Amino acid sequence: MAIFHEIVLAGETYAYATTTTKEQAEKIWLEVPRKTFVFEEDGKVWGTYYIKTNQAGPGSHVCNCGYMVSSLARGKGLATLMCEHSQQIALKLGYKAMQFNFVASSNEGAVHLWSKLGFETVGRLPKAFNHPSKGFVDALVMYKWLQN
Amino acid sequence: MAIFHEIVLAGETYAYATTTTKEQAEKIWLEVPRKTFVFEEDGKVWGTYYIKTNQAGPGSHVCNCGYMVSSLARGKGLATLMCEHSQQIALKLGYKAMQFNFVASSNEGAVHLWSKLGFETVGRLPKAFNHPSKGFVDALVMYKWLQN
Repeated sequence: MAIFHEIVLAGETYAYATTTTKEQAEKIWLEVPRKTFVFEEDGKVWGTYYIKTNQAGPGSHVCNCGYMVSSLARGKGLATLMCEHSQQIALKLGYKAMQFNFVASSNEGAVHLWSKLGFETVGRLPKAFNHPSKGFVDALVMYKWLQN
Repeated sequence: MAIFHEIVLAGETYAYATTTTKEQAEKIWLEVPRKTFVFEEDGKVWGTYYIKTNQAGPGSHVCNCGYMVSSLARGKGLATLMCEHSQQIALKLGYKAMQFNFVASSNEGAVHLWSKLGFETVGRLPKAFNHPSKGFVDALVMYKWLQN
């Protein structure tokens, strides 16, 4: 929850309201997803991600994940570790592809990382992300087919 | 509900499970959206659409709509009428743009119609839609900025 609120309050990366309550956050990150993981070391949680079905019915073979890393643990490869883990979990759960629906184009670190991990930018939503200091910036849709 | 089930059972256009119950359908179409409209004539409902916020927080200026027309009322311009109505409602509700997240590329009629009504194809999700007879087809993301 501390990581969630730190990241959501910054308002630069995730499409959650800065006013999201603890109860809403628990619903978003723990209840609605199919699974949620944490990365724990020395008794502390440094990162977390969820995996869920992105669209029901004819879209249910594609999953969606969200990853968050504590500001105290950035630059250590934790996002890479969690993303690679999530792809393995996705396959085990029977998903064929993974989609990120709403990556702020201003979040260059994330865009670069997901590209490096094999995600293709398959969509660009013009001015769909209202950045707290940059104003309306494009949001990207990124996608990776996980199996043939 | 009759229109919803007719369209969802066909499985060709909407990312809802064919097993969606009446209760789930009511939640999807009536409870979760911000507003839901019906087109009624001669005491019967021929079409319906919902409007809702597509992404929270930094994405909350973009809305999403879903439209359904009874098979008994196709080809009469009802989808056009509802889509134009929804754009007016969107502006009244304070939205700046409208996004369709998951248009099956095989649904050529819809793609053509939304294009004609000013929606740009801003994304293509490879094999993201599992069509009952055509198998995995691409899904499109379509987008229209409603005001400057």
